[in-house]
Amino acid sequence: MPDKKEARPGEVAIELPRDFDAGVYFIGRIRTPFASLAACPKNIGEAAALGKIELDPRYAAGLKDLSSFSHLYLLYWLDQARRDLVQQVPVHLGKPRGTFALRSPVRPNPIGLAAVELVGVEAGALVVRSVDCVDGTPLLDIKPYFAAIDSIPAAKRP
Amino acid sequence: MPDKKEARPGEVAIELPRDFDAGVYFIGRIRTPFASLAACPKNIGEAAALGKIELDPRYAAGLKDLSSFSHLYLLYWLDQARRDLVQQVPVHLGKPRGTFALRSPVRPNPIGLAAVELVGVEAGALVVRSVDCVDGTPLLDIKPYFAAIDSIPAAKRP
Repeated sequence: MPDKKEARPGEVAIELPRDFDAGVYFIGRIRTPFASLAACPKNIGEAAALGKIELDPRYAAGLKDLSSFSHLYLLYWLDQARRDLVQQVPVHLGKPRGTFALRSPVRPNPIGLAAVELVGVEAGALVVRSVDCVDGTPLLDIKPYFAAIDSIPAAKRP
Repeated sequence: MPDKKEARPGEVAIELPRDFDAGVYFIGRIRTPFASLAACPKNIGEAAALGKIELDPRYAAGLKDLSSFSHLYLLYWLDQARRDLVQQVPVHLGKPRGTFALRSPVRPNPIGLAAVELVGVEAGALVVRSVDCVDGTPLLDIKPYFAAIDSIPAAKRP
């Protein structure tokens, strides 16, 4: 359920469009050791936990050949996040930052992205490391990770 | 408009759920030199083209601080792709592969993902390199690229 508490000082809330432009299917669930948002790692760099991707059987044939990749991207739906903040004040920063310069779940389309190690493939399920989302998070997509285009070791951040 | 042509031999089509589980907003458009799907690079490794991200003014305040990152992820909506194939026969492979082991636009949730270099920030817009999608592709999200978690140079593929 979206968190409708007030914005903190320095945060900027907008009015979202009245209608959606397209729809997504939840194709599975991510099972993690984190039963609540409070239990999730604050930083995916700390998230060495194993998680299980339980795919809806409807899509199971889509996993063919995935086991020959070492790493995957997971895209998932952060259904507990509010969507109307374009500037946020993360606790670790203490000042406003643009939503698109943050990996916060709070964003107009609350799609989470994680590059994870593929540990094992079972019937209709995957075991992966590292996950940082809450248990039961809806899955949107799985993509193979291609180091040639996805790995940018020299990328700079502030 | 989704491409409703028949599946090729070896491809597997499924019946999609009747209802969507959540909705997305198109928050902008990606302007590229590629006027049609046929004109797009077949491989993002070849895509050195500059593109312009035109953000809906509603979300412009979300770009604050983005210019201190060298690279971004773009998430976008591949609205010309069919969504019902769980196994596909890519021309370069000539045999079926699971959809989740491919970066093809054809997938249950046709969300494209690209790690791009941020070349410049303008009012409500970004200039990026490299893009491979068709001109006018709807934008879903912009995220900063964090080498510490996103860059996996040793990731293996078949």
